[in-house]
Amino acid sequence: MDLEKFEKNIGYTFKDKHLIKTALTHTSYANEKKIESNEKLEFLGDAILEFIVSDYLYNNYKELKEGEMTKVRATVVCEESLYKIASEHNFSDFLYVGKSEIKCGR
Amino acid sequence: MDLEKFEKNIGYTFKDKHLIKTALTHTSYANEKKIESNEKLEFLGDAILEFIVSDYLYNNYKELKEGEMTKVRATVVCEESLYKIASEHNFSDFLYVGKSEIKCGR
Repeated sequence: MDLEKFEKNIGYTFKDKHLIKTALTHTSYANEKKIESNEKLEFLGDAILEFIVSDYLYNNYKELKEGEMTKVRATVVCEESLYKIASEHNFSDFLYVGKSEIKCGR
Repeated sequence: MDLEKFEKNIGYTFKDKHLIKTALTHTSYANEKKIESNEKLEFLGDAILEFIVSDYLYNNYKELKEGEMTKVRATVVCEESLYKIASEHNFSDFLYVGKSEIKCGR
């Protein structure tokens, strides 16, 4: 897997290459290789993303009410939006996916 | 309202006193006085708290799985837990509450 190309794609170079490898490791691959999957990083990442978007909305959209900010945040931090970004950067080309998952054509 | 006493209670001194005043302003009081309530800060605070707890769990409870971390976080960041902490620090003594709310005995 060409992680350097992936880093160029997203415009960020990781200091700890172990982190990026884990972040790209699907559960199916992790199970086959007995290594850590990206699930726990996803847990952490979701919380960070939620915080960054909240902070951004709070500071840049002062006219929005609390309920409106909650709605906007839910639209931004959701599977569909994140999938779109992932597709634009061809994340799927760099994912470590297990053989079982590939066979299923997912 | 003795905000200095409140700051002693929580062991933190605010640089921007406007922030702490807003954080303690219930909607009922804000409506009566035509000022900002704590609702938007609550939106931001919830996201910060969620992130801090996620980060703490991720780094200190490495044996927990993602699903377990989600459960623990939900128990920590919930109204009941936060109410307990607020009670321990007598937050209600320092809240700016509107007359309508006080009449209702809430």
